Amino acid sequence: MSTIDLNADLGEGFGRWRLTDDEELLSVVTSANVACGFHAGDAATMRRVCVLAAERGVTIGAQVSYQDLAGFGRRAMDVPSAELAAEVAYQIGALEVFARAAGARVAYVKPHGALYNRVVHDEEQAAAVIEGVLLAGAGLPVLGPPGSRLLALAVQAGLAAVPEAFADRAYTEHGTLVPRSEEDAVVTDPDMVVERSVRLAHSGTVDSRAGASIEVRARSLCLHGDTPGAVDLARRVRRRLEESGVRLEAFA
Amino acid sequence: MSTIDLNADLGEGFGRWRLTDDEELLSVVTSANVACGFHAGDAATMRRVCVLAAERGVTIGAQVSYQDLAGFGRRAMDVPSAELAAEVAYQIGALEVFARAAGARVAYVKPHGALYNRVVHDEEQAAAVIEGVLLAGAGLPVLGPPGSRLLALAVQAGLAAVPEAFADRAYTEHGTLVPRSEEDAVVTDPDMVVERSVRLAHSGTVDSRAGASIEVRARSLCLHGDTPGAVDLARRVRRRLEESGVRLEAFA
Amino acid sequence: MSTIDLNADLGEGFGRWRLTDDEELLSVVTSANVACGFHAGDAATMRRVCVLAAERGVTIGAQVSYQDLAGFGRRAMDVPSAELAAEVAYQIGALEVFARAAGARVAYVKPHGALYNRVVHDEEQAAAVIEGVLLAGAGLPVLGPPGSRLLALAVQAGLAAVPEAFADRAYTEHGTLVPRSEEDAVVTDPDMVVERSVRLAHSGTVDSRAGASIEVRARSLCLHGDTPGAVDLARRVRRRLEESGVRLEAFA
Amino acid sequence: MSTIDLNADLGEGFGRWRLTDDEELLSVVTSANVACGFHAGDAATMRRVCVLAAERGVTIGAQVSYQDLAGFGRRAMDVPSAELAAEVAYQIGALEVFARAAGARVAYVKPHGALYNRVVHDEEQAAAVIEGVLLAGAGLPVLGPPGSRLLALAVQAGLAAVPEAFADRAYTEHGTLVPRSEEDAVVTDPDMVVERSVRLAHSGTVDSRAGASIEVRARSLCLHGDTPGAVDLARRVRRRLEESGVRLEAFA
Repeated sequence: MSTIDLNADLGEGFGRWRLTDDEELLSVVTSANVACGFHAGDAATMRRVCVLAAERGVTIGAQVSYQDLAGFGRRAMDVPSAELAAEVAYQIGALEVFARAAGARVAYVKPHGALYNRVVHDEEQAAAVIEGVLLAGAGLPVLGPPGSRLLALAVQAGLAAVPEAFADRAYTEHGTLVPRSEEDAVVTDPDMVVERSVRLAHSGTVDSRAGASIEVRARSLCLHGDTPGAVDLARRVRRRLEESGVRLEAFA
Repeated sequence: MSTIDLNADLGEGFGRWRLTDDEELLSVVTSANVACGFHAGDAATMRRVCVLAAERGVTIGAQVSYQDLAGFGRRAMDVPSAELAAEVAYQIGALEVFARAAGARVAYVKPHGALYNRVVHDEEQAAAVIEGVLLAGAGLPVLGPPGSRLLALAVQAGLAAVPEAFADRAYTEHGTLVPRSEEDAVVTDPDMVVERSVRLAHSGTVDSRAGASIEVRARSLCLHGDTPGAVDLARRVRRRLEESGVRLEAFA
Repeated sequence: MSTIDLNADLGEGFGRWRLTDDEELLSVVTSANVACGFHAGDAATMRRVCVLAAERGVTIGAQVSYQDLAGFGRRAMDVPSAELAAEVAYQIGALEVFARAAGARVAYVKPHGALYNRVVHDEEQAAAVIEGVLLAGAGLPVLGPPGSRLLALAVQAGLAAVPEAFADRAYTEHGTLVPRSEEDAVVTDPDMVVERSVRLAHSGTVDSRAGASIEVRARSLCLHGDTPGAVDLARRVRRRLEESGVRLEAFA
Repeated sequence: MSTIDLNADLGEGFGRWRLTDDEELLSVVTSANVACGFHAGDAATMRRVCVLAAERGVTIGAQVSYQDLAGFGRRAMDVPSAELAAEVAYQIGALEVFARAAGARVAYVKPHGALYNRVVHDEEQAAAVIEGVLLAGAGLPVLGPPGSRLLALAVQAGLAAVPEAFADRAYTEHGTLVPRSEEDAVVTDPDMVVERSVRLAHSGTVDSRAGASIEVRARSLCLHGDTPGAVDLARRVRRRLEESGVRLEAFA
């Protein structure tokens, strides 16, 4: 029987602003990437999301980011290693308090936005993120893109490295994501997203942009939830996965 | 034999800016109130200060503040209780990571600046700070002004309430600090500061502004270290306390 | 013929977050209170809103606030006068660039949130806001609550003082707003809001909470636009005002 | 007779923190690059520096930066063009208010830190900075590195492009600065710095790292002032320039 985790970004509001429909998403995912205040996510929101996640048995992860509220963490930054490592650890620690208070714990770490993209290839920043995870002390698993420097360095550091896939993103023939700047980067047809999810979960394969079946070994599927349509789609993906006999289970 | 703790604010720089001479102060104090990023104190500085404190056997406390870098936490803010409690917990959690990584732990909590002044009388904010401390989970002692609502509520919540005194501040006949806005609020003569420190440590008394001996029961003396002269004075205070037979020891 | 201005808060998103439906509101109001980056409103949003406002002939005002993104400017702050005055001027100057680039100009100033409430009674902060307006140099009109210290000091300083009313807020018999903390502070029935708007525009009166007709001389009505229903209601208010023969015209 | 401008970064504190000795530097330089709040420089500091500069007849320039207080604007950021242009204009506008209130005006723009380095080669960000300057509307001169894309695009846009030189930095044989990451990037001998300043001002040449005389046409010399020694050195440079018959005069 196939097993897969469903993760999504949560708590991505800030103060007066809301973005993600946290309550709805928490009824769909098995792992919640909780924003920790650097790109989104104020303290009260972090607390609330942790309480809701714990109530629903959803695993809590720290979604760590560059310190950039104005850019929502989507602007790559040349942060020196020592600063970046400390910033990652800071965010994990802040979230731990709320996870613990909710009777849960921070169970993994996932980089956000521009940092996520950067650590695919950037050795120095990938190493700094891992250093930050190690600083936090609990030997947390790292969730990220397959084939990335981040996951390679996680393994070297003795951490669990968990690759994820995107059912709504196009893949090149090399198994990497088609950059958002290119046409056809995003799969917009809901039926196709659902179908790709099921195939990814069962066989670990997906059709590349060129039409060839390629292997994308992923222990988790990343769902998007920052639009109303996205939540409905996430629900459909979950239902179809369950109907097709996939067991949904957090990886951590 | 009398025992007293010496505490001071540390790590109060931010990014490129430095304020406190952390290395020097850590050779004087027994407890370090480490800024947690809300009024001062970036992640890399917090990490560095925790490492230095742990090496010197100085106890680490979380100096929690309103979220106000521009005002250095010195501008009173009407923060709703739920937000304030979460913000306090957030700061404690962030610091815990660095204390733990340095082989130590966060051993107490002390409010900073305008929040410190506010919780003397403000029931709601005092309660929110205590709620934040409880959220953080470790039942941490609270360091603050004697006679404050903060310490009263700490006791009610089952937390250790640790009153502190200032040798360089004038006291009213009621044992409260003369507000900084009034003349003679600060004792500027170094010899007098040293003498008052010794008397506070030995007998728990100090001369009020009006000249009457009043009781100020304090388990800790707060030293200031944000000017070069202040560090020298702090050193003199420590030396004289030791010479007069006072044992210097962290309260936590 | 009666003349009234309709104003609303605009550009109150930040980075990735949106709050106000700026395009829709700009087809309703005659004056746009544009957020200037301290409680909301990043630079790119400010630029966009100024372009749209200029295209539609809507007058641009600077909606100045405490520096508090996390609290959306809704947490009262004890900002020293010199800082507050400079912060107000800073915000006006930043907005001026975008108004000017759009072929318009900043034509008035209105405080936001907790600052708006504070300057009703707080002499010092009201004076600081006026000082900030004077620093900005153009002798801008000040939009605010009738009977406030802010408007009184504006007049003393030789600035135009423009009182505004709220059709969707209850009034005490003294002509002041019923605080939001009290029941019945907000008028929720859309028909009643429309009717009160028309009466305010024509006769400058409104029924107080106790049912007595009181005078509320206002040159501008403040509409809310941060919910979809609010925009529809704002449209209805405008239509009914026009149908009833009120001329809609910016005050500045 | 040779003429040169002396510029330095000023107002680079933030809130409680101070960095530059603004009063001292303003008695040395002819042009003040005033921080505008994005990497340093709160509103009250901007106001104070503008008043002091106007009193001394020092020309005021906007030192624009990435929005990064934690990194002091020294961390390169991939800011999209539209955001960067708006952010540059925002900073210029904010400073204009204080320059105008002091009876002066913002007379030029200079990028700071990582943005300064980036626009040497990055066409997109250089164009965004120029767009921001044009948005601000006054056709301001741009101060920056000789040979940079920034200055080339300034000229194309019809703006004055003002190249600057550093007497305390080593140059390659191509006339570019030796990166700080390399050894010998900084000239530390004060006598040599003074001698290089005089030669740059008189002949527009300097010895490259390899010892060859190269041409560095600069209308302004950038002095550093964030350490006490640097201020003394700046004073010596000014005195020697004057003694050697160089006329010190702002370029704008």
